[in-house]
Amino acid sequence: MNSKLRIIPLGGLGEIGKNMTVIEYEDEIIIIDAGIMFPENDMLGIDLIIPDYNYLMDKLDRVTAVLITHGHEDHVGALPHLMNDIQAPIYATALTAGLIEVKLRQAKLWQDVQLNIIEAGDLFTIGSFTIEPFHMTHSIPDCVGYGITTPVGLLVYTGDYKFDHTPADGKASDFAKLAEFSSRGVLCLMADSTNADQPGWTPSETVIEEAFDQLFREAPGRIIIATFASLTSRIQQAADMSQKYGRRLAITGRSMRENTKMARQLGYLNIPEEMLVDINQAPNIPANQITIMATGSQGEPSAVMGRLARGRHRQLSIQEGDTVVFSAHAIPGNEEVIHRTINQLFQRGANVLYERIAKVHVSGHASQEEMKLLINLIRPKFLVPIHGELRHLRQHAQLARQLGIPEENVVAIENGTPLELTSDSLTVCPRMPGGYIFVDGAGVGDIGWSVVRDREKLARNGFFIAVVTVLGGEILGTPDIVSRGIIDMNESESLIAGAEETIARVVMLHKNSTKPLAPNIEESLSRYLYAETGKRPVVRAIVK
Amino acid sequence: MNSKLRIIPLGGLGEIGKNMTVIEYEDEIIIIDAGIMFPENDMLGIDLIIPDYNYLMDKLDRVTAVLITHGHEDHVGALPHLMNDIQAPIYATALTAGLIEVKLRQAKLWQDVQLNIIEAGDLFTIGSFTIEPFHMTHSIPDCVGYGITTPVGLLVYTGDYKFDHTPADGKASDFAKLAEFSSRGVLCLMADSTNADQPGWTPSETVIEEAFDQLFREAPGRIIIATFASLTSRIQQAADMSQKYGRRLAITGRSMRENTKMARQLGYLNIPEEMLVDINQAPNIPANQITIMATGSQGEPSAVMGRLARGRHRQLSIQEGDTVVFSAHAIPGNEEVIHRTINQLFQRGANVLYERIAKVHVSGHASQEEMKLLINLIRPKFLVPIHGELRHLRQHAQLARQLGIPEENVVAIENGTPLELTSDSLTVCPRMPGGYIFVDGAGVGDIGWSVVRDREKLARNGFFIAVVTVLGGEILGTPDIVSRGIIDMNESESLIAGAEETIARVVMLHKNSTKPLAPNIEESLSRYLYAETGKRPVVRAIVK
Repeated sequence: MNSKLRIIPLGGLGEIGKNMTVIEYEDEIIIIDAGIMFPENDMLGIDLIIPDYNYLMDKLDRVTAVLITHGHEDHVGALPHLMNDIQAPIYATALTAGLIEVKLRQAKLWQDVQLNIIEAGDLFTIGSFTIEPFHMTHSIPDCVGYGITTPVGLLVYTGDYKFDHTPADGKASDFAKLAEFSSRGVLCLMADSTNADQPGWTPSETVIEEAFDQLFREAPGRIIIATFASLTSRIQQAADMSQKYGRRLAITGRSMRENTKMARQLGYLNIPEEMLVDINQAPNIPANQITIMATGSQGEPSAVMGRLARGRHRQLSIQEGDTVVFSAHAIPGNEEVIHRTINQLFQRGANVLYERIAKVHVSGHASQEEMKLLINLIRPKFLVPIHGELRHLRQHAQLARQLGIPEENVVAIENGTPLELTSDSLTVCPRMPGGYIFVDGAGVGDIGWSVVRDREKLARNGFFIAVVTVLGGEILGTPDIVSRGIIDMNESESLIAGAEETIARVVMLHKNSTKPLAPNIEESLSRYLYAETGKRPVVRAIVK
Repeated sequence: MNSKLRIIPLGGLGEIGKNMTVIEYEDEIIIIDAGIMFPENDMLGIDLIIPDYNYLMDKLDRVTAVLITHGHEDHVGALPHLMNDIQAPIYATALTAGLIEVKLRQAKLWQDVQLNIIEAGDLFTIGSFTIEPFHMTHSIPDCVGYGITTPVGLLVYTGDYKFDHTPADGKASDFAKLAEFSSRGVLCLMADSTNADQPGWTPSETVIEEAFDQLFREAPGRIIIATFASLTSRIQQAADMSQKYGRRLAITGRSMRENTKMARQLGYLNIPEEMLVDINQAPNIPANQITIMATGSQGEPSAVMGRLARGRHRQLSIQEGDTVVFSAHAIPGNEEVIHRTINQLFQRGANVLYERIAKVHVSGHASQEEMKLLINLIRPKFLVPIHGELRHLRQHAQLARQLGIPEENVVAIENGTPLELTSDSLTVCPRMPGGYIFVDGAGVGDIGWSVVRDREKLARNGFFIAVVTVLGGEILGTPDIVSRGIIDMNESESLIAGAEETIARVVMLHKNSTKPLAPNIEESLSRYLYAETGKRPVVRAIVK
């Protein structure tokens, strides 16, 4: 068989394979993960980003499976969009499937999707592919990587992982399976690069238990813990410690409540019913007898923690003696708003613990020594570093070279760049256009970079619009002017007077001209506004 | 004497004493430092922020001195604004004075300002205050703190510092002076808190020499080092290493060139003339024989490094074999744009070194063990943590309590909160309004939060303006519509058609009404646009 296997990481530039990977062989396509990206600070007004899967649009019926590694947003968040277009079944472990179900129900897509529950250690065939999910540790339980036996050879895809020997759920990574893959011969390893610039070995999740134990022993009043809604193992750790120290537990934030309910039903969360208390009842419980789990660990203004920080939560307000814990890492770009939220919580009297000053969060991703162990366990012919910015992929590639993987067998590529794999070659193809699909308000994909650039211009410079009625070469009345975002309104009286004079001068000058008036007014107004304010607002003139 | 000493840290909320501190006794005022703050990501279109010194405006003639600790932007950057209003002389050490001179010349203020050059170890009197500048190590040479003997007691102000026993210029902090202050009895210590959440002891600047030595030994091609324009000691380190490894040195970026020229004239930079080469000549020199110092370490798009990353520099372009070094820390909020710049440089073929993966920068601020040493050296009656966000000030306060400073003698307050100090009491007064002055385009202070909020709304939602001509209750022609930032123009045809129908419906409904038409059109348009796009743009209707 001479056909090639095509591997295409879809998603935004700068990160690869994090959000969605296409594996294509002849007329069969399988997809691994379908996650969202979070907008960067200069993607104004964008709510979230899904990978651009335009490449699939003329071959949707060839997709035979969507394999999911774990239940975090950056791996499953795009499913409500993707599953609008794709008929193929989703394959996921039980907890991951539960998180997906919550998500698809919210999107009213649940009835239409076939969701197959798999287990680490399974082996099943989809067309030309034999799929072997294997257990990997990360910061969420029930995480798997995939061994995929293809017609060209064996592919191993790690998903997000770290090698945690004492994970919260007691199940270590399946080293035996990784060794077995190695003995069979691995053609290509695709491995997580997120922490490639971190020396050493990432601490175990149990480090958090020690930090929580000290916290629960010493906290004088309420304990409020912010984390990701999908981080069920952290909720379990908080529940266990609450039980130990005689506190009841309230869960706030819709997605966290729904995920908790689902995980308890599936047996992934073990919290006695009598321990749980509704958030409305929380104020009736003595402060040193309650723990509150909350969303908003990224400082999102509309989530629980953001509202508490600004005194805008309906049921709760921060009081002296509260201990607030940020038990999550900062998604890059969120540092500033998280720190502001922390400062506001201090202002309101809380004591605040966060990653920098207490071991209340550890990374879920492998550090350099774990990456080296993985490479030496697998000894793949080819390595494709995935999950990370280009700087991480390059660092991962460098580690591989130190371990003797030939330089030409390691490719650090960005999203949208197809790879062609045969049993003895790996070829990098030209990058396809596209990358992001912006989701914004009610719309998916009807916003492109041009709108974001417009917004940026508006954001930096504001706008200035003048409606001028001209009759027989003379201005009728005064122009109507609408302006925002340039300077303070109470300072703008003289600015507007000057603009009116500018308009009058242009109209007068063009009294006997046949050239269109509007562009001339716009040009003069732009010049005038720049001279007065140093700003280049969006300027439009409408001549009636 | 029963009068109180007032201490007022001016500047934005969240940080204190970083940018400008007012010390007031009866009718005398001295100012320490006058720095800028950098805008946060949601302060749209704002170039920089200066401390709000409105408090001083009715007592400008009472200001007797402006004492400067060192030449970094966040301590001297507001002088071109402040010195427009203030007649008092500036006091600064020679290098700091040189950096101020460059700045005031650029602002065409140089003729009007009296700048007194002082030395660490001096003692001079200004009215009721006796001033003793003392040498402290930081990441720039010629840094001082101030001992200020006031009628109520001795105040010690550290400025930015770390205890570097092997600084780049060989001059350690003046421990003897600190001990002498202690023996005299210190009423109040105001000390740097920037790294209060960092355990241990900050590494010495010489760590960088080792990293640079390895880098210069191994780099196959050009070395391009980005740092702050005012970080002359880093320029010296690069020059020394260039000399050792037979490279010539080019300096790019206007402010860095001017600062280098000044520092060489004053003898603070020791670079042989024949080593320096103009950036225009750089392409003629073999790649492994040149080092280029550049601005843009914060990823600023208009600085050298940002232009190189996007391929928009006039004289230079990145080539295979280049080693680019980010030898500076990320100012909080800049992480995302710096990382993007690094990724772009990798894309263009450079190898990029940055703080995370190589010791090419160390912090200039004291860590916890240094803070403890300072407190125990000084043993002040009162401690006012300065320089840092509230979370750092609180952490610093906690360290002081661990050392036995009574809790009530440590106050972690935010900017704009006056303190009243007597020989045996420290009182926190109510916070004054104000905080920031935004500098934006040509304007200083004519932008307030309301404009920034307008910009934020425009940035997230765009605007939609309709001009409707109504005659006898009927619409004349089609409405003129101007819209930006909502959805892509090529998708907006149907949106505009729907908006025209909405307008027509409202006009028809109000045909016989005497109520004003515009507000009704605006309300209906807003509802329509939200239903169609999920966005709430700025909507205005003008009815002619």
